[in-house]
Amino acid sequence: MMDMKINPIGLIHTPFTTKDACPMQPLYSSSAIGQVEIFKEYENGLKDIETFSNIYLLYLFDRASEIEMVRKTFLDDEPHGIYASRHPCRPNSIGMSIVRLISRENNILIVEGVDMLDKTPLIDIKPYIPKFDLIESATEGWTAGKNWRPKPAGRE
Amino acid sequence: MMDMKINPIGLIHTPFTTKDACPMQPLYSSSAIGQVEIFKEYENGLKDIETFSNIYLLYLFDRASEIEMVRKTFLDDEPHGIYASRHPCRPNSIGMSIVRLISRENNILIVEGVDMLDKTPLIDIKPYIPKFDLIESATEGWTAGKNWRPKPAGRE
Repeated sequence: MMDMKINPIGLIHTPFTTKDACPMQPLYSSSAIGQVEIFKEYENGLKDIETFSNIYLLYLFDRASEIEMVRKTFLDDEPHGIYASRHPCRPNSIGMSIVRLISRENNILIVEGVDMLDKTPLIDIKPYIPKFDLIESATEGWTAGKNWRPKPAGRE
Repeated sequence: MMDMKINPIGLIHTPFTTKDACPMQPLYSSSAIGQVEIFKEYENGLKDIETFSNIYLLYLFDRASEIEMVRKTFLDDEPHGIYASRHPCRPNSIGMSIVRLISRENNILIVEGVDMLDKTPLIDIKPYIPKFDLIESATEGWTAGKNWRPKPAGRE
């Protein structure tokens, strides 16, 4: 079975230096502003990104704790499978958040709605394209009626 | 700078054995049925996934060609930055598609709307959660008014 090495293409700078300070999933709960720094060798790849209002950031949960395949989440105390959740402690440690793109200054994107730790390694950016990504018929699954709640001390 | 090794957690079985046969972005252009096989050691992580109608598949473009930071896409002949596009030939080779979850049979998910090559290595699954992912205000960027078109022979 193949495996593959991932190399960060940049860093996400956010106001959040501890896990307890991090909000959960951007546009829903955070209006925090962040700077997405793309390393200079990848800067050309940003051409035309400023035509989009929203972008996916893919990044590494580089400070995640132990992986559990079934666990409680930030939304309720019922255990859910890691693939039915966005929890950071997951195999391959890849995070995904949609943020609002405010502006671009060369290799820096100013974005709204960050929910990751400061200096999180960025591995990809994809445009949010409504005809692919805006799914009116999607159901809320087990998250229906659940709301984000403040994390108790010590929760990760 | 850290780097990280990605290990596939499964395989995506689709009807598409050549790049020319692949549609572009699922729910938009494909009603093809696929089987997402999750390796047995990760099966527990699927608990409650069947409560969602749509899921993100993250996978490796394991048969992608040379990376170009600015290139033409499947939507038009203007060159766009790779981060303003979903093109497969990109740094870190991670693909993302939203598919409709039809059913689950133990470690196999039956899904509709696959657009990747047969036996594509799966690296993560995340639920599509409307309150995070359904962004009514998102603009179409440079893709506005563009439609998918058949790939000319030899295009990748």
